[in-house]
Amino acid sequence: MSIPESVRTGMQQTNALFSSAVVKNGDIDALDNIYTEGARILPPGANLIQGRAQIKAFWQQAIAGLGLKDAKLSSVDAQAAGDSVLEVGKADLTLGEGQILTVKYVVHWKQEAGLWKWDTDIWNMNQ
Amino acid sequence: MSIPESVRTGMQQTNALFSSAVVKNGDIDALDNIYTEGARILPPGANLIQGRAQIKAFWQQAIAGLGLKDAKLSSVDAQAAGDSVLEVGKADLTLGEGQILTVKYVVHWKQEAGLWKWDTDIWNMNQ
Repeated sequence: MSIPESVRTGMQQTNALFSSAVVKNGDIDALDNIYTEGARILPPGANLIQGRAQIKAFWQQAIAGLGLKDAKLSSVDAQAAGDSVLEVGKADLTLGEGQILTVKYVVHWKQEAGLWKWDTDIWNMNQ
Repeated sequence: MSIPESVRTGMQQTNALFSSAVVKNGDIDALDNIYTEGARILPPGANLIQGRAQIKAFWQQAIAGLGLKDAKLSSVDAQAAGDSVLEVGKADLTLGEGQILTVKYVVHWKQEAGLWKWDTDIWNMNQ
């Protein structure tokens, strides 16, 4: 099913916020507008993490630990699934030393408080 | 949204087929009843792979390469999403030397030809 333009715009805004506010500016509280309250992330090399407070702690540590400087997210495919969206995407992560890491991901999006947010977020590395 | 019992049963049958037919017996063609025709997998350490023929080639190589002997799949959570299902699960993989590898995954399920199948399948390692 195709996705309404308004939903696409909402998704793009959320992705842009992750890059600009969270990664570039280190504003971890911007994750309130990116993940749903009960969201889950499944990071490589760790157990599943549930809940926004725990997700914030993860990202704070991960951004500092990796020296993450930039994250360019691009949607490869997005499908409507009832009132949610299933997205496959790729991310180019710029690390401290200018190294670029290519990551692919699946995000299950839900609408919460008028915003389109990541409810389930899993990724892994291409290399 | 909760998932009808008939759908849960269909999902369990598909997961059981993966373990018994594909992994234990090396019956790669059983993947016809596990993945949708246009399915996508996102394996760690590789690019996205789309299409059942390509997915079969991947699993044939991966099972032999890893010496995969058993795969126990267990559902952690499954949510209805329109006429599809979003599942988070974990897999215990038994490798050749008896080593157990713990993997977590997200599968987007769709119904095809009366069977519940994996349409998008992404996983990563816990360690």
